Amino acid sequence: MNYMTKILDCTLRDGGYYTNWDFDKELVVEYCKAMEELPIDYVEIGYRSISLKGYLGEYFYCPEYVMKELKELMPSKKLTIILDEKNIRAEHVDTLLKPCIPYITMVRMAIDPKNMKRAIVLAKAVKAMGFQVAFNVMYMSKWKEDSAFLDLLEGLEDTIDYFYMVDSFGAVLPNDVKDIIELVKSKTNVSLGFHGHNNLEMALINTITAIEEGCDIVDATITGMGRGAGNLRTELLLTYFDSKNILKTRYAIMSNVVSSFENLKAHYAWGTNLPYMFSGAFSLPQKQVMEWVGLNRYSLGCILNALNNQKESLSDN
Amino acid sequence: MNYMTKILDCTLRDGGYYTNWDFDKELVVEYCKAMEELPIDYVEIGYRSISLKGYLGEYFYCPEYVMKELKELMPSKKLTIILDEKNIRAEHVDTLLKPCIPYITMVRMAIDPKNMKRAIVLAKAVKAMGFQVAFNVMYMSKWKEDSAFLDLLEGLEDTIDYFYMVDSFGAVLPNDVKDIIELVKSKTNVSLGFHGHNNLEMALINTITAIEEGCDIVDATITGMGRGAGNLRTELLLTYFDSKNILKTRYAIMSNVVSSFENLKAHYAWGTNLPYMFSGAFSLPQKQVMEWVGLNRYSLGCILNALNNQKESLSDN
Repeated sequence: MNYMTKILDCTLRDGGYYTNWDFDKELVVEYCKAMEELPIDYVEIGYRSISLKGYLGEYFYCPEYVMKELKELMPSKKLTIILDEKNIRAEHVDTLLKPCIPYITMVRMAIDPKNMKRAIVLAKAVKAMGFQVAFNVMYMSKWKEDSAFLDLLEGLEDTIDYFYMVDSFGAVLPNDVKDIIELVKSKTNVSLGFHGHNNLEMALINTITAIEEGCDIVDATITGMGRGAGNLRTELLLTYFDSKNILKTRYAIMSNVVSSFENLKAHYAWGTNLPYMFSGAFSLPQKQVMEWVGLNRYSLGCILNALNNQKESLSDN
Repeated sequence: MNYMTKILDCTLRDGGYYTNWDFDKELVVEYCKAMEELPIDYVEIGYRSISLKGYLGEYFYCPEYVMKELKELMPSKKLTIILDEKNIRAEHVDTLLKPCIPYITMVRMAIDPKNMKRAIVLAKAVKAMGFQVAFNVMYMSKWKEDSAFLDLLEGLEDTIDYFYMVDSFGAVLPNDVKDIIELVKSKTNVSLGFHGHNNLEMALINTITAIEEGCDIVDATITGMGRGAGNLRTELLLTYFDSKNILKTRYAIMSNVVSSFENLKAHYAWGTNLPYMFSGAFSLPQKQVMEWVGLNRYSLGCILNALNNQKESLSDN
């Protein structure tokens, strides 16, 4: 086990998929105070974005007053924001990221492998502003089939600080994590990160495996709050680390913030269930499942039928 | 992957820890019909027991009319009951098990390793009545420290059909599963079984590991319903097997029965949470946690404090 592994908590950013990036002020303050006390290295507070259609809450845009306030609440933490590469171009960087300079240590970019070339142009513009840069590259469970995009990483060691493997579908197993890390390491020397999803309840064991295979940074969220089936739970990772004498944790602080997010979970019900297990097992996108499950209008059976049709590439009328 | 691995569903038996072994008749009928259609080999319908103090529901005693009715609903399945070895002696066997003969294929015994000798006497009496016999030996996460009881298995190949390793505390990781299977295999040639708990969300990966290491039978329950943090979810195991082309499953049937148990889960809230993670990570008994969590009177923080004290072997005043 690599004792130097860094933990990034992205509860507000990934949890925003359930709350449309709105969170009660009180909860955010409690969360930030807990983060400040817990052995977390990086805290991702949200997206930064150009204006998009439709309403998106405060933590989707992270205006300067949000960054300022959160940095004051977490002075000892490295804060990060993430850019959704599909919406952001190099020409947006100046306006979007200049206000971040006093508060944000690292800028992450969520990247579809097919847009890797374009992402590299953006990354260079971000790096030029002095930020640490992380690539969060999606659809890891498909990389064994098509890994050509990894060749584009050559010579980018000075541009990218962390190359994250994102298990978007919650589909990989520990042996896949090993294989894919070996594949990625054969192409680049950039430090590696892992962002797991919990569809098959593999988030912790995949993360442990990633650390054992040399990952330098891993993601988690309080109560696993995050898109679809959700993420590795921060409290599970920290409890595991404590039991292995890797990191001490303060349970009183952790249990309070977990309780507060459990209250939200009682309403939004993130976490895995049969449709998410199915989408994970067959590497299907969970955005659609999340909409169906969220509607409370379809039975599990209907959702599974629709997913089965999607898997068979049939139209589902 | 061993394609011949058998699946035992013990939803009513292990789920009974939440309902005091009472279940709505309608739910039981739906459950049995689903089991009959799903690729499950054994269905454990409950305990058989001498009369114990206090009220315990129908599926704790499984009177003959229950066994008869459930066998009629699941004619193609092998039914099992379990005996709690600490309450049952060889002299009870005749009265307790004679009524089982027409309905029950296998009798399992829940065994504390320290009672192994006494359990073997009981097992011989059970075997003499013609049943398959399984040992469900508890506290697997402690076996590396003390494995002397395994020596008692010598020469019991004709008495015990399956030797189950029970991860009572939900504490083992895949590497522990490998080590412990190697240890057990060095002592006996009896076929092996694995019963996982989900405190650390390791139930599926531990079960997959157990199968890869040669386990012949594994346990699961619908929605993971079971003591404390609960078990491996049957729907997760079957979805995983389907995705790996090991076993086809019928999602329409599975999703209906899962939905029905999800309704119960909304009430009883089994599944892992911070106190169960903690008890798993430190191999503490979850009976106490289950009482504390069930009372809804203690905060997570209080429960964790009490557990921490227990871990440190302090009194918790």
